Amino acid sequence: MPLITLTTDFGLRDGYVGAMKGVLYSRCPQAQVVDLAHLIPAHDVIHGAFALSHATQFFPVGTIHIGVIDPGVGGRRVPMCVECDGQYFVGPDNGLFAICAHQAKQWRAYQLTKTEYFCDTVSPTFHGRDIFAPVAAHLANGLRIEALGVPLPQPTRLEFPELTSDDDSIQGEVVYIDSFGNAVTNIHRENLPNTKPQQLRIAVDACEIQGLVTTYEDAAAGAPLALISSVELLEIAVRDGSAADTLGLTRGSPVRIATQG
Amino acid sequence: MPLITLTTDFGLRDGYVGAMKGVLYSRCPQAQVVDLAHLIPAHDVIHGAFALSHATQFFPVGTIHIGVIDPGVGGRRVPMCVECDGQYFVGPDNGLFAICAHQAKQWRAYQLTKTEYFCDTVSPTFHGRDIFAPVAAHLANGLRIEALGVPLPQPTRLEFPELTSDDDSIQGEVVYIDSFGNAVTNIHRENLPNTKPQQLRIAVDACEIQGLVTTYEDAAAGAPLALISSVELLEIAVRDGSAADTLGLTRGSPVRIATQG
Amino acid sequence: MPLITLTTDFGLRDGYVGAMKGVLYSRCPQAQVVDLAHLIPAHDVIHGAFALSHATQFFPVGTIHIGVIDPGVGGRRVPMCVECDGQYFVGPDNGLFAICAHQAKQWRAYQLTKTEYFCDTVSPTFHGRDIFAPVAAHLANGLRIEALGVPLPQPTRLEFPELTSDDDSIQGEVVYIDSFGNAVTNIHRENLPNTKPQQLRIAVDACEIQGLVTTYEDAAAGAPLALISSVELLEIAVRDGSAADTLGLTRGSPVRIATQG
Repeated sequence: MPLITLTTDFGLRDGYVGAMKGVLYSRCPQAQVVDLAHLIPAHDVIHGAFALSHATQFFPVGTIHIGVIDPGVGGRRVPMCVECDGQYFVGPDNGLFAICAHQAKQWRAYQLTKTEYFCDTVSPTFHGRDIFAPVAAHLANGLRIEALGVPLPQPTRLEFPELTSDDDSIQGEVVYIDSFGNAVTNIHRENLPNTKPQQLRIAVDACEIQGLVTTYEDAAAGAPLALISSVELLEIAVRDGSAADTLGLTRGSPVRIATQG
Repeated sequence: MPLITLTTDFGLRDGYVGAMKGVLYSRCPQAQVVDLAHLIPAHDVIHGAFALSHATQFFPVGTIHIGVIDPGVGGRRVPMCVECDGQYFVGPDNGLFAICAHQAKQWRAYQLTKTEYFCDTVSPTFHGRDIFAPVAAHLANGLRIEALGVPLPQPTRLEFPELTSDDDSIQGEVVYIDSFGNAVTNIHRENLPNTKPQQLRIAVDACEIQGLVTTYEDAAAGAPLALISSVELLEIAVRDGSAADTLGLTRGSPVRIATQG
Repeated sequence: MPLITLTTDFGLRDGYVGAMKGVLYSRCPQAQVVDLAHLIPAHDVIHGAFALSHATQFFPVGTIHIGVIDPGVGGRRVPMCVECDGQYFVGPDNGLFAICAHQAKQWRAYQLTKTEYFCDTVSPTFHGRDIFAPVAAHLANGLRIEALGVPLPQPTRLEFPELTSDDDSIQGEVVYIDSFGNAVTNIHRENLPNTKPQQLRIAVDACEIQGLVTTYEDAAAGAPLALISSVELLEIAVRDGSAADTLGLTRGSPVRIATQG
């Protein structure tokens, strides 16, 4: 049973997600269509790119992922399919699949140019229904990626600031806020200074956190804490609360790590 | 594998959707149960009717759609099933399926009177679980619609204002606000004056938009725009924003189209 | 096709739900993974316990339910599986499954100690992905509950206040607010005084409601009402509105029922 997943910013109060499912089941009745996330913040390609990368790495080879966070739908960005280590990603070439491709050992991308695999009429404002869903159904039915169009050698990338560091500290930033208000940074476990976790000082905004903990429960209720998240990145959280709200963190907020001096 | 879809205003923080799925899988284990939308605004039958019509037209013949936006549950409105061009809609007779029936080439409706197809006990406040789900499971198991009850010759309709027009203009209104804040009107592509799209002036509230565009990207960031939506109706949007919030549009807001004079 | 359901407070804007589905489909491709509710209020174990009990009782024997409302993840609470009348519940031992177990004729619980059924690496902050999902997949593949670990004779219970009563009245409280703002109490149909429903007086906050009705439609628009909910408990509602907002009700708000004197 081919797996086709859906990740969108369509919400769950309209017919858009359902229309895509209708196209999929009409053209590939044996598919298993799986919702990943439909409440991605509207137009937020970066948030969608992270959410996709957090989820799709756990799916089996052969899975087809449709992603539609696509504020430029119908415009200059092209529709694409990228194969990453045997999984397929179908959607706009706007960076949405850039993290998945970056994390893959191997990837190859195609621009979707073969209109015979689209719906008969294509709305300029709903490629999810009229291009991405029928193309995904064709893939699920066994069509090869090469048949979909022409190679796309340089798909759109996302630019993330590099970490900077000096003798005393590492500077990174918040790259993702989750629904709990946890703030995930671009500082990987492997970037941490080679010292005891308890001796790190993590400075975010006006707040300084002393040491890393292992679980949320290691902090007092309402207290800020820092730990290594489930995706191996430094995360700022508040026990039983929202770090984003409590500490005023947003994407881009600077984070500084220093060894105790 | 029979397809059964669910569209409700139940939200996703309670056990109501799950209870319906339990009833469905208990009585039709081979069903494929598909979520369409569960965040329909509470009690908003008109919104649900549009969302259903936007999605269900893309499903294959034989699909069974359960819709539960049902503020009058247990009261005077009757439970019904309507077959529209070979798809089945199960829910309250309150107008929820009126747009789907209106758009179908053929439809026939039945009042659900055969209580042997209901759950053993029926709560007056949860027909989704106790009437609609078991009836849908019976349909999925091969029961014919005629067996469910008695013909319902005149199901509830929704009243929409007609367009009005004079020599210079057409007057319609907003009929649907989607989760992006896009405002869909009751002005169909075919209702537009026979002139160049660039020469139309679209007046909504205090705002006048000059000309139709093809995609959201054709407008400047934050600017209002008008285009033909993915369901072939005139739509007012704001590039990378919410027309509902920015322009103060709600269902019923008047929209006036004039040719440039 | 084994049924595996998911109930979480993860929301639908992140990759967490998708990651769990990826683990499930990778390890049990023939599973049918069913979303129950993902917008459980963050960290609200009691809300999740009620939502689960409202839904899971309708699923067939053999269903595997994963529940992850788990503010203490990685800390002192242990991972568990409890079998209740032939259905399986996998998640944290924090009371989340306590109502389901309480309502079952028979239950038996195991602490999950056999790490060979977990993912190869276990994040201290995401047991849903790394412990509960793979354990559920093993159950779906036929593993017996006894193989998962050691018996857990006294799983965590939830404490609910008992009803109190005197000659004239019964005192209970609101135990659950649903997404409509309906306030469900801990007063069961069987606890009501042996008198005509129309003669009961229900006092909540400053509001007194005269008599029980059968359906929401029995009250005037905007008026408060009391009825027996679809889970057989006394419910306070507002016709076409939110009792929580209108009457200021929250979990714990006292409710007093008196016979008309």
